[in-house]
Amino acid sequence: MSDSDFKVQLLLTGNEIMSGDTVDSNSAMIAQRLGELAIGVYRKVTVGDDVELLKKELTAMATDADLLIMNGGLGPTVDDLTAEILAAVAGVEIEEHPTAVAHLEAWCGKRNLELNAANRKQAMLPAGCTIVDNPIGSAVGFELTLGNCRVICTPGVPSELAAMLDGILDSLAQQLQRPVERNILRLQTFGLGESTAQQMISDALPQWPDEVDLGFRAGAPQMEIKLSIDSASALPTQQRCREQIDALFGDHIIGEGDTLLAQRVLELLQQRGQTLTTAESCTGGLIASMLTRIPGSSQGFHAGFVTYANDIKHALLGVDEEVLEQQGAVSEEVVLQMARGAMQRSNADYAVAVSGVAGPDGGSAEKPVGTVWLAWGSRDKLRTRCLCWPVERSLFQTMIAAAALDMIRRTLLGIDEEPRYFSQRRAR
Amino acid sequence: MSDSDFKVQLLLTGNEIMSGDTVDSNSAMIAQRLGELAIGVYRKVTVGDDVELLKKELTAMATDADLLIMNGGLGPTVDDLTAEILAAVAGVEIEEHPTAVAHLEAWCGKRNLELNAANRKQAMLPAGCTIVDNPIGSAVGFELTLGNCRVICTPGVPSELAAMLDGILDSLAQQLQRPVERNILRLQTFGLGESTAQQMISDALPQWPDEVDLGFRAGAPQMEIKLSIDSASALPTQQRCREQIDALFGDHIIGEGDTLLAQRVLELLQQRGQTLTTAESCTGGLIASMLTRIPGSSQGFHAGFVTYANDIKHALLGVDEEVLEQQGAVSEEVVLQMARGAMQRSNADYAVAVSGVAGPDGGSAEKPVGTVWLAWGSRDKLRTRCLCWPVERSLFQTMIAAAALDMIRRTLLGIDEEPRYFSQRRAR
Repeated sequence: MSDSDFKVQLLLTGNEIMSGDTVDSNSAMIAQRLGELAIGVYRKVTVGDDVELLKKELTAMATDADLLIMNGGLGPTVDDLTAEILAAVAGVEIEEHPTAVAHLEAWCGKRNLELNAANRKQAMLPAGCTIVDNPIGSAVGFELTLGNCRVICTPGVPSELAAMLDGILDSLAQQLQRPVERNILRLQTFGLGESTAQQMISDALPQWPDEVDLGFRAGAPQMEIKLSIDSASALPTQQRCREQIDALFGDHIIGEGDTLLAQRVLELLQQRGQTLTTAESCTGGLIASMLTRIPGSSQGFHAGFVTYANDIKHALLGVDEEVLEQQGAVSEEVVLQMARGAMQRSNADYAVAVSGVAGPDGGSAEKPVGTVWLAWGSRDKLRTRCLCWPVERSLFQTMIAAAALDMIRRTLLGIDEEPRYFSQRRAR
Repeated sequence: MSDSDFKVQLLLTGNEIMSGDTVDSNSAMIAQRLGELAIGVYRKVTVGDDVELLKKELTAMATDADLLIMNGGLGPTVDDLTAEILAAVAGVEIEEHPTAVAHLEAWCGKRNLELNAANRKQAMLPAGCTIVDNPIGSAVGFELTLGNCRVICTPGVPSELAAMLDGILDSLAQQLQRPVERNILRLQTFGLGESTAQQMISDALPQWPDEVDLGFRAGAPQMEIKLSIDSASALPTQQRCREQIDALFGDHIIGEGDTLLAQRVLELLQQRGQTLTTAESCTGGLIASMLTRIPGSSQGFHAGFVTYANDIKHALLGVDEEVLEQQGAVSEEVVLQMARGAMQRSNADYAVAVSGVAGPDGGSAEKPVGTVWLAWGSRDKLRTRCLCWPVERSLFQTMIAAAALDMIRRTLLGIDEEPRYFSQRRAR
């Protein structure tokens, strides 16, 4: 599906990647962004912060690529060798670049930091290089041509790389006269596994058209379905595929693009001028945190309760002490009372309450690790469900917090049908 | 710093890695496991599922390595090319391997599956290869020597790779007669940047010994300092370096290994049999979530309040409405009242309260985005501070939540000295 006339290689550097201390997610990010221009990466090489090795790789790779993106080694420490190596291979000097100095000064100024010697090193760049703006970090990127190969050096900090890639993509689109982005339609889902989704599509849509590239990206908590086409002529086919996917997965689709569950819930609340409150035991504040991570969340979310201990469930939310004692904290009546108490105290329109056994300890034969009761809804109508999602503690918290938000999303949308995970994650 | 006499390379294959749909975590897993034997990986190459490209890489890499681990391409589909490629480069035939067939039959038998043609393909291996057992999956690994290089082919499914690495490590330990692990000392810090730490060490300890490898891993919110040695004879030097680092960074060091701030705080609370409560506005539940992510957190953390709206700060925590109106939600008096209200309502011994402007909107000339008031301490003694940490919303929340936990850690340890970030992140 990609343009085979334009050869792209990646050269990644960093001892922390070689040692396995850090998992490299940058090269996947670069490949995905290049994919938007239908540019494929055909080879990537990763080495540690070693001058001779880097020189050798850079020299060899530049003879066999139209574009070489280097990643890492732009920072202020002695490990950061990229500028020095590119200069050596290009046969130019390292010099202080005025644009980079100005960038550093502005960066430090904004943060009330002094520009120290270590930071200043980041302005020492190969003579004649072009600066690639870093909209958020201290180290600018830079570019130089080696023979016929554009070499673009990018920072290892993922957020900085992400911010820089927009400009790099624009420049590549211009170079390749490919102003139209590859058309990628991304759909966010919750509650579907990658293999289940793949199997459902294979079964239901055996005649999937060649011109629409189907991809999946499984994350926690969401899973993305990607429909890519390389030419505008395939737009109607892409649209038809999207409708088929909609019909197949229905209300498991949260939205397009990067839509997050919390974002969708807040949008729906805002449309109605209503608010949600949270009463969390085993998720311990994660639902509130997922909501408040979204800018502007204060419109739909005013108050959250983390009631981790039994006496606190009573004291803060008015959960009946006898019920706690007789039925236990992980019970239907307790989550119902938590939800009611939270709505009453916060004056919110909707509530979600969760109480479960996150593990690794605390499970019993009756309520094993992974068991969780959820209550959700409005004052008029609260619903409950017991699920069992026996995975590692922090993944459990993530998936249950997402399920809680998903149930509120379904409530706000008036969806009555149960999600697939209700039957798959049924408690015994 | 690792054994440079034993050269290891990794060759990874998979279209899903090249496209960025999958982030490769396997190479980090392999590197970490090899690190246990003080074996470093010096280079890794990743290419798509392309026969010619793979043959070329394999041929070249085998001439420059003592060990080459290939990963991916062992499965039953047409994309899975590893056996074919290794056979071609070695100049041997592909043949059905009886041990692999027996493994497949046993694997299918256990699952009541029929051994189909696609699965049977996984037993077609290079003639003369040695089988590497796969304790959990259908595809066995296999090994062949090319020149002086051991080539070990491993599966791309992470859990299968993990299971297979135990046996590979045993075999390598035997080959290298190296039962002893490399000694790595890791220290977790908060409030130090990578460049600051590097600068401070360069300034204070110019005579850093060669035999102790110094590394940094900047994360959000913590930064790790790593001291690695390759032989037991360097242990006293490593210890001396550690003491120097302790003296230099002092109370910015949270602990050894993987210690998280929240974990340290919970440990200290547990030692005292005391509890902490949280009153969060701009961090929106993240402090509570960081605490409850730690197993066993229920001992030191019983209750948390997310009071995002002004009327909720009043209703839930008893913050004075006049104070809110006159001084604004982001003010010293408000965080003090939040902390007091939270302790009173939860009966906790300690509290931390935060109220700030997370952005991107909501800033003013007087209180720009990034401004935050913190209050922390016990009933007897609450302290406050205003900081300005103007970074992107979710990073702001992460850093401020960590700073809040750090102030509680310092309180519990009786540290009176101010952390470095108090002056660096001083509000105007």
